Amino acid sequence: MALIVQKYGGTSVGTTERIQNVAERIIQFRDAGHDLVVVVSAMSGETNKLITLAKEISDPPTPREFDVLLSTGEQVTIALLAMALESRGYSARSYTGSQVHILTDSAHNKARILDIDNQYMRTDLDAGRVVIVAGFQGVDAKGNITTLGRGGSDTTAVALAAALKADECQIYTDVDGVYTTDPRIVAEARRLDKITFEEMLELASLGAKVLQIRAVEFASKYNVPLRVLSSFDEPGSQNSTLIAAEEEEDNKMEQALISGIAFNRDEAKLTLQGVPDQPGVAYKILGPVADANIEVDMIIQNMGADNNTTDFTFTVHRNDYPQAKEILNQLVTSLGAKEATFDNKIVKISMVGVGMRSHAGIASEMFQALAEEGINIKMIATSEIKISVVVDEKYLELAVRTLHSQFNLDEEAVS
Amino acid sequence: MALIVQKYGGTSVGTTERIQNVAERIIQFRDAGHDLVVVVSAMSGETNKLITLAKEISDPPTPREFDVLLSTGEQVTIALLAMALESRGYSARSYTGSQVHILTDSAHNKARILDIDNQYMRTDLDAGRVVIVAGFQGVDAKGNITTLGRGGSDTTAVALAAALKADECQIYTDVDGVYTTDPRIVAEARRLDKITFEEMLELASLGAKVLQIRAVEFASKYNVPLRVLSSFDEPGSQNSTLIAAEEEEDNKMEQALISGIAFNRDEAKLTLQGVPDQPGVAYKILGPVADANIEVDMIIQNMGADNNTTDFTFTVHRNDYPQAKEILNQLVTSLGAKEATFDNKIVKISMVGVGMRSHAGIASEMFQALAEEGINIKMIATSEIKISVVVDEKYLELAVRTLHSQFNLDEEAVS
Repeated sequence: MALIVQKYGGTSVGTTERIQNVAERIIQFRDAGHDLVVVVSAMSGETNKLITLAKEISDPPTPREFDVLLSTGEQVTIALLAMALESRGYSARSYTGSQVHILTDSAHNKARILDIDNQYMRTDLDAGRVVIVAGFQGVDAKGNITTLGRGGSDTTAVALAAALKADECQIYTDVDGVYTTDPRIVAEARRLDKITFEEMLELASLGAKVLQIRAVEFASKYNVPLRVLSSFDEPGSQNSTLIAAEEEEDNKMEQALISGIAFNRDEAKLTLQGVPDQPGVAYKILGPVADANIEVDMIIQNMGADNNTTDFTFTVHRNDYPQAKEILNQLVTSLGAKEATFDNKIVKISMVGVGMRSHAGIASEMFQALAEEGINIKMIATSEIKISVVVDEKYLELAVRTLHSQFNLDEEAVS
Repeated sequence: MALIVQKYGGTSVGTTERIQNVAERIIQFRDAGHDLVVVVSAMSGETNKLITLAKEISDPPTPREFDVLLSTGEQVTIALLAMALESRGYSARSYTGSQVHILTDSAHNKARILDIDNQYMRTDLDAGRVVIVAGFQGVDAKGNITTLGRGGSDTTAVALAAALKADECQIYTDVDGVYTTDPRIVAEARRLDKITFEEMLELASLGAKVLQIRAVEFASKYNVPLRVLSSFDEPGSQNSTLIAAEEEEDNKMEQALISGIAFNRDEAKLTLQGVPDQPGVAYKILGPVADANIEVDMIIQNMGADNNTTDFTFTVHRNDYPQAKEILNQLVTSLGAKEATFDNKIVKISMVGVGMRSHAGIASEMFQALAEEGINIKMIATSEIKISVVVDEKYLELAVRTLHSQFNLDEEAVS
């Protein structure tokens, strides 16, 4: 007997037939004696329909009213799922974010959860009811409806699990876990049985399809074990990835150096060459970029060719690339730089693993493996459990496959 | 400067373009200095879509969850209308039934309003905001979402007007008022400028297309002046019907005997002939009918042909006709009656008017006019301000036109 919070995303509840399947899955857990709180998203496509309606009226829509509108999507799903359970003879109650007192700040469209009153849910759980809660939404101190931003349903589930001190928070989606890398690139990619919060956060670009990063941060903060499962697997399938805190014993055991290889095709690289080197040059370059609300990912500063100048390189999202280019072209003149160069045909590849901490030489092994395939590295960035390199985008598949095999992540290497 | 409650039905807010038109209409009232509380229905078609979803899951759906589901329809409209006003620079706030504390009993799907806390609306009105409230929905004492049943948005509007002591409750729909009869039957039908609550209630079958009868009862009880207008008329149009209490001066003035002629094609007539006459025979016949949840409208009992028996006739909705027939056929044997006869090719025609009270001879004038056209009357029922007759349905148009003209309701007769 455990208390489990389950979350089903939009695809898992995309049709009434799928909602019936979700009800059957919940019943299996109930029959096994577990207490269940279930968080659901809007049926897939519904949120986009509501956004289209809003934009026909007003673009951008009034933030407060946009939340009143969007929150209806999840409200439809909770009602339908509760009906499906009740019609099967299982007691269930649906609640909006407001009804279950998910208190947030008043930042409409991107509200943060401040507090959850778990008393309502406890009463229902004690009475043997399945509690079904609308994801993605809450209520502020004045009673206004708020939403947590897209993908906020994962955060709702983790927050409810934390508030209820649940044994596990299960995130049902259309894949059965987190993989060593994208199986569409590397056929030998394996599902990971277990991964730490830290690794999951670094594997963001792999995990983003599976889990909202904000939810992982939340789970890490409150130490809520998160499990990713597929709602399309047969109920009872053992396929899943558990995301949890690093345990003492994990360190003692021999463990994989690398958990996974992530990549990101969405970045572009910009370089300002031959900038007269002086204190504050980084700020002078990145200040105007930040002012334009452009987020910068990797940053590298090198000595320039003539020792009195510096070369400054950074990456931004490709959506921001045209605007960032313009800013850099202006900076060439104002900073007296030699020239600005640009490259949006790049890809960032990252190896992630907590095992990296205790093993030297991972970086050099990575660089060597890439060099042997003739892949030139354009940028490097490292953190305690991650090494990222930027390479020409044409090498993406080759580089990922090379590293996946080099670091023994391939399925056959393990079995 | 008045406080006006306006209600826009599903057709009036059926598309985002129509919602923009409603916003423009509201703005004209705001610019004229009025305070406004606006009640809206779900966009036309939306409620039916939600019902279809529910039935795919569970038929009948769990009442509590059905309300959670259906209430989203109006919530979408309030958000869109508030956005439309805000984008035009007019301050507006949307509220669900729960947010504005429309307290109801817990009778899901057909809840009754118990109380409304007008403090929330007052604060917004004082701050110069248009208050937009979801019709059709409320919240019970435990915080469960309830709905008032179909057409409940009219009731919401009247209840808000009563709670706020509004000067007028305007019901916008797709017709510009209440007519002397159905203009599709009588081309000369006129829009009534004013009508009493009592008359409106008796004209139910005409008014049902325009106003929910429950809302009229509510308005009558709390003496809220109701005005029916078309949301498709040019803003500023004077076309409307005011429904209000009968005033002293109305009685003094010479007024029309008849306000309108209603008709109902939905009834069927059943007769038990030659029932041995004894005390309690009416109960013995209508008891089994009531037990089958069949509502009876008109009832007539006559002495039978041989003086020891009685003929008993009543009408029911045509939907209930087959079941009622079956019951009567059984009663022939159990009560020892001569025979049961049936007729579902009938129509009920009703003349309504408060002027009837002080004028004798209306009934005989009515019967004579019908007789002159060779129309045989099959049943008669009267109330203080109404006379209803049942005739063969083939005479519907002829009978209505004859009476409309006989009692000077035709447009040319007035002008």
